[in-house]
Amino acid sequence: MELSVLQKSRYDYAPKLPGMLRHGIAEISVKEGEETQSVADQEQIKALFPNTYGKKEITFVKGANTSAAKKQVVGVILSGGQAPGGHNVVCGLYDALKATNKDNELYGFKGGPSGLLDDDYLIFDDAYINKFRNTGGFDIIGSGRTKLETPEQFAIAAEVCKKHGITAIVIIGGDDSNTNAGVLAEYMAANNTGVQVIGCPKTIDGDLKNEDIEISFGFDTATKTYSELIGNVERDCNSAKKYWHFIKVMGRSASHVALECALQTQPNICLISEEVAAKKMSLSQIADQIADSVITRAEKGMHFGVVVIPEGVVEFVPEFSVLIAEINELLAGSKADEFNSLASWKEKYAFIKDGLTEASMKVFAILPTAIQQQLFLERDPHGNVQVSLIESEKLFSEMVGAKLAERGYAERYATLHHFFGYEGRCAFPSNFDSDYCYSLGYNAFMLIQYGYNGYLSKVSNLSAPASEWVAGGMPITKMMNIERRHGEDKPVIKKALVELDGAPFKYFEANRAKWAEETCFTYPGAIQYYGPTEVCDLPTITLTLEHAK
Amino acid sequence: MELSVLQKSRYDYAPKLPGMLRHGIAEISVKEGEETQSVADQEQIKALFPNTYGKKEITFVKGANTSAAKKQVVGVILSGGQAPGGHNVVCGLYDALKATNKDNELYGFKGGPSGLLDDDYLIFDDAYINKFRNTGGFDIIGSGRTKLETPEQFAIAAEVCKKHGITAIVIIGGDDSNTNAGVLAEYMAANNTGVQVIGCPKTIDGDLKNEDIEISFGFDTATKTYSELIGNVERDCNSAKKYWHFIKVMGRSASHVALECALQTQPNICLISEEVAAKKMSLSQIADQIADSVITRAEKGMHFGVVVIPEGVVEFVPEFSVLIAEINELLAGSKADEFNSLASWKEKYAFIKDGLTEASMKVFAILPTAIQQQLFLERDPHGNVQVSLIESEKLFSEMVGAKLAERGYAERYATLHHFFGYEGRCAFPSNFDSDYCYSLGYNAFMLIQYGYNGYLSKVSNLSAPASEWVAGGMPITKMMNIERRHGEDKPVIKKALVELDGAPFKYFEANRAKWAEETCFTYPGAIQYYGPTEVCDLPTITLTLEHAK
Repeated sequence: MELSVLQKSRYDYAPKLPGMLRHGIAEISVKEGEETQSVADQEQIKALFPNTYGKKEITFVKGANTSAAKKQVVGVILSGGQAPGGHNVVCGLYDALKATNKDNELYGFKGGPSGLLDDDYLIFDDAYINKFRNTGGFDIIGSGRTKLETPEQFAIAAEVCKKHGITAIVIIGGDDSNTNAGVLAEYMAANNTGVQVIGCPKTIDGDLKNEDIEISFGFDTATKTYSELIGNVERDCNSAKKYWHFIKVMGRSASHVALECALQTQPNICLISEEVAAKKMSLSQIADQIADSVITRAEKGMHFGVVVIPEGVVEFVPEFSVLIAEINELLAGSKADEFNSLASWKEKYAFIKDGLTEASMKVFAILPTAIQQQLFLERDPHGNVQVSLIESEKLFSEMVGAKLAERGYAERYATLHHFFGYEGRCAFPSNFDSDYCYSLGYNAFMLIQYGYNGYLSKVSNLSAPASEWVAGGMPITKMMNIERRHGEDKPVIKKALVELDGAPFKYFEANRAKWAEETCFTYPGAIQYYGPTEVCDLPTITLTLEHAK
Repeated sequence: MELSVLQKSRYDYAPKLPGMLRHGIAEISVKEGEETQSVADQEQIKALFPNTYGKKEITFVKGANTSAAKKQVVGVILSGGQAPGGHNVVCGLYDALKATNKDNELYGFKGGPSGLLDDDYLIFDDAYINKFRNTGGFDIIGSGRTKLETPEQFAIAAEVCKKHGITAIVIIGGDDSNTNAGVLAEYMAANNTGVQVIGCPKTIDGDLKNEDIEISFGFDTATKTYSELIGNVERDCNSAKKYWHFIKVMGRSASHVALECALQTQPNICLISEEVAAKKMSLSQIADQIADSVITRAEKGMHFGVVVIPEGVVEFVPEFSVLIAEINELLAGSKADEFNSLASWKEKYAFIKDGLTEASMKVFAILPTAIQQQLFLERDPHGNVQVSLIESEKLFSEMVGAKLAERGYAERYATLHHFFGYEGRCAFPSNFDSDYCYSLGYNAFMLIQYGYNGYLSKVSNLSAPASEWVAGGMPITKMMNIERRHGEDKPVIKKALVELDGAPFKYFEANRAKWAEETCFTYPGAIQYYGPTEVCDLPTITLTLEHAK
């Protein structure tokens, strides 16, 4: 079989545009709003972006198209990790571009930003692009993690654009990539290259979010896919009634994914990294919290449950971060050789005990042996502990087991482990993401056509039906502040963490005690693309709760 | 949220019955076919089942219902691992039972066969059963793995039935449970208990299949769920272009699941345990086969791929089975203490080298260290190696790495690992499984109503639309043969392995060379319950190919 039946069928789906973009290109007019300021550090940001700072927010409305008629050649880049809907951004961009002028051309740079630097591209046509409509993945042109951030790279980019007559670049990426899009836009303007740069907000992690970006694309589909799986595991758990399932979900820097999945599936426990950091929780406290649920449920005859863990949680545990820093120090340079020369784990353990502070040794001592060994045996090329490789789902399940033993719990406690990440990044985009992404791309071209530079394609009012969505653009500089990164002050778009006083967390907090003791599992099932609107077009619970404020 | 929107919506789905069952209870008549014989060992089986052997195959047809009017009290049991659709078997059974006579009652024995022995039950009513229509899981009454097989258990079962006036038991289970249903039916007949026993074919593994059972229920939904995930991982793989993903799927005794997933997703490599056994393949040969694909693809610039591995494959590798047997022997009794007293892995390794035959030591030596240690350190209560715990996805990815190094391959080879099992056993049943299961349950009651005992509920012609399905019953003894189990000759339903001369494997075999070298990934996406028939009601490729014969 060349194509799945669903893929064939999805080709026929017509993504829904915001109402104001539905009247045809000739009927899209611009309404300019207020001049903008960056969210913080205005003077510094303004100084860094003399050409692109302070521009006006814009909204598209129904009205005569007043843009200048000229041939446009546009380039598009997919940057960073995959997120469902990326193909539709490209399709929307292509359709608006071709609808405006059949001679317009869209270049796709291959393998991420490096494609622009290496001048590695394809030119889209109908036959090619139609194969990717409403599909998951970034295989349309591939993606990559090269960062576009140095003046040397910018100069090459400008040259490549000049060579092909490219007048605009659309960068589809996360917070870093959109920050860099802003910097590139400034460069292009400062150097009178005539190239516009437009960003599009992508990331399944959901941490590219602010008062202008209601949600990054891909979050909807990815969390629905993980919730499908968590719900299925919950139902298995509640049928077999014999296992505690520890489920890790993607999301290293923020816990939006875990939180949304928890809201959708109501597991017994869900850890939220931001809360762990705010409350300075220890590993032991976390394990105790889970053990409480195990014991309470066992008293009710339920020797089973589900725990959801965000991928990055251990990095938010203060004592654990200190331990990692000490281990990195302990093995720096030639000390690693000394350590490696020790023959047995016993000797190595003594070496470790000798080298760590008492506080860190206490943390180290309660870790399961497998994790202890992993911390010392698997290190990255710089000799540092590879925190991302730590199987935190196993770490916590074992620590809970130890807690239970300490507390004299002698009943059944059997565990199973899962990690859901790669399963959700390339799913067929939900109707929401199909619509949202297509709109972002379509809208991006309208920003180009109207001559804007350094803008983010913005589609908002997303918890309403698509007909009521609002399309427009926001200067990227408006979202920036100055942060210290790698020892340097840099203008960046702030990464959005879960807000502990936000509506989604508050809802979770108000319900979790009940979820921990009872079985309140909810089973979302697989993403549906056809059928009743309430089943197919539901936004995330996070978005719904945020908009209910 | 109490219920997901999909769950609420699925309550409204009306499962499709076979055409002949659609005219109402009053219009269901029986057509008796030929008397049957067991598939093998006729004399022995006949002697063991004097009361239930040789009965006629029956089919339901449109015609006047001639069954005797009497109140029926029926019990139902879910046996063994979860499979999507179990709830619908109960719903179909309940609906036919209530449609026949409002005073009829359905008892659900809780937690599997042990519920019958412990007299632990609930009595279904509309309000309760409606909460489970078209949903996944076995949480309606729970399931369990107690085997009903001894005369003592049968006597208790008969007593419990008598106490409640139960005149029929429906057992929903796999090959073992249906074998036991046949034995229980014989007991009930031999002892004139007046209790009928009817079996229903359940297992996601797909290994309860023969000329009468086209497919066990749950296989369709489970393989579609795994294929969704494998397809998503493939798309991620083909977008990021930097990893080899090793994906293990459930299925210890047979590879139907892996094969169906491979047919749906076209990975680069899929191992089939039955082929490994038939060709007496070594671990090294398997690793070489995968390494071939890695190298060929790398030569074409593709440093990525997907390998699907059936859960039980290592148990089918002859040399590995010998090794496991030797290890069990090596650690039997007090020898385990001697082994455990050795302080370092080095000493332990020497002990192992000393104890194994040269051939097995050769196999042991090529295993990754983590697997070597696992074989010796984690043993079951009887001191045996826990083969099911072996992470074969990691075993093969590491062995392939070693092969590549041996062969001088110096390019990128980065791996990721997945195991898909619990994610699929409790998914919302596909329309196919919703319809099939409801029909099996409805049909089971018609068999009861017409007085049959020791029959399996049979619904066939399943690759056609449901209106053309054929409903009826087959004596369980017809599927039996004598096999040696735990040192005893026993009458059992034969477990169906993947047939290497069957159409599904032949199709796979004809295409796999291309799949190994090129990127032929297919992305099935999530199971759809609404929308176009070709998307929602598609049977498995295995079934389609088998019926195309």
